[in-house]
Amino acid sequence: MDKKNTLKIIKIGGNVIDDAQALSLFLYIFSLIEGPKILVHGGGKSATALAEQTGLEVKMIDGRRITDAATLELITMVYAGKINKTIIAQLQALDCNAVGFTGADGNTITSEKRPVSTIDYGFVGDVKLVETSTLELLLNNNISPVFCAITHDKNGQLLNTNADTIASELAIAFAVQFEVELYYCFEKKGVLKDVNDDNSVIQTITKSSYKKLLDAQLIFSGMLPKLNNCFHALDHEVSKVCIGTPEMLLDSKAIFTTLTIQ
Amino acid sequence: MDKKNTLKIIKIGGNVIDDAQALSLFLYIFSLIEGPKILVHGGGKSATALAEQTGLEVKMIDGRRITDAATLELITMVYAGKINKTIIAQLQALDCNAVGFTGADGNTITSEKRPVSTIDYGFVGDVKLVETSTLELLLNNNISPVFCAITHDKNGQLLNTNADTIASELAIAFAVQFEVELYYCFEKKGVLKDVNDDNSVIQTITKSSYKKLLDAQLIFSGMLPKLNNCFHALDHEVSKVCIGTPEMLLDSKAIFTTLTIQ
Repeated sequence: MDKKNTLKIIKIGGNVIDDAQALSLFLYIFSLIEGPKILVHGGGKSATALAEQTGLEVKMIDGRRITDAATLELITMVYAGKINKTIIAQLQALDCNAVGFTGADGNTITSEKRPVSTIDYGFVGDVKLVETSTLELLLNNNISPVFCAITHDKNGQLLNTNADTIASELAIAFAVQFEVELYYCFEKKGVLKDVNDDNSVIQTITKSSYKKLLDAQLIFSGMLPKLNNCFHALDHEVSKVCIGTPEMLLDSKAIFTTLTIQ
Repeated sequence: MDKKNTLKIIKIGGNVIDDAQALSLFLYIFSLIEGPKILVHGGGKSATALAEQTGLEVKMIDGRRITDAATLELITMVYAGKINKTIIAQLQALDCNAVGFTGADGNTITSEKRPVSTIDYGFVGDVKLVETSTLELLLNNNISPVFCAITHDKNGQLLNTNADTIASELAIAFAVQFEVELYYCFEKKGVLKDVNDDNSVIQTITKSSYKKLLDAQLIFSGMLPKLNNCFHALDHEVSKVCIGTPEMLLDSKAIFTTLTIQ
């Protein structure tokens, strides 16, 4: 199959979600991108703030949030309600037509509740199946799907799912018919050689240079799952993965990290 | 234009939203309905419950909720997040493909913030424009849009909008190309002659009999805006409007109220 069309899948997180001005700037940039595009957003700090307000205890094990029933309800409200609809309304104001999605909408992303081993993560889902047909309908009509980090198990249960993973699994599913470019946008300029020096961006990482960086323990631990996600996508026909600030989407002179197989 | 296809637009509110079992039963009935269908849901009592939990004061003037910024954020979380996504996940479990919508999604319903006269209702929107193209895309592919009671002003502002009105305005917009049937489902069997007697259902109301009922002051005041909405729809090419319990959608022997022009 001839993959002529490029599809851009862009994930935003960190400060780009938490800071209203940074979010507005990002959405302006997103609205200017030509061609089919999908946005995936993380949850930012709003969920924790609402949890505190309602007196809900945030349970963390090894730095990971445990999603009990009350936490799932709360993040469904914050991610699919507050954040997703604020983004959709702002995109419409920019004449960028968009529709909000969880994985349950259009039965787009089915997950499996993570099995309980040493840790019971609660209502957390690992992606099992991505169904692209509804999304293609919209993309073909110049409408951008906007995903929050919630999926379902097809048996009526919503599940909390990592936003980076949602972005990479969407990218892999669409790589069959599109030339897919995957962009992870946050407040840093990319993968840093020195975590304390924002200007130490590693501009290109190949699979072999990634192994060398890992061996030399030069990858900051918080970046590891993100990079593994990226190479997982590249291993499954995704053309290009980039990590950096939103500016990388428009400014040809912007400095950011590009990951490639070779 | 030959309007061959029937589109059913079904609004649920009251106990059908608040009671988990009643909601599940309704969704089962909804999943069995053949042909194109749209669901519109009200907010029920969850918003008030969360408001109490977060210490947000519910402001009412003349029995109407005043939507300040904090209230708008809260109902966006409850309506578009919690309730809408719970419904979508349950419909998917019933093999009924559905996508959740606010009026901002797909730019489907644009409203105007209600002008301040004697009362400032806050972020409340009166429907100005319904854009059906995105919804038609989905309906043509056997996917049901599920609307919550939130619209936008196309300038980035979400607005709280009456769910009955959203249902009737969608019905009117689709009446151009569909034979539209509009159903208002709640816990009562229909419009009652005697508000204390659940079996006193008025089975047919025409425009002229409605005037007689009004003159005789036989319409319970809470029902007035609902019935005005219904006749507004009938005046704008909607074929049929029915009010009753969800059973009216499937059971040919069910007793409910049907409104017609003549």
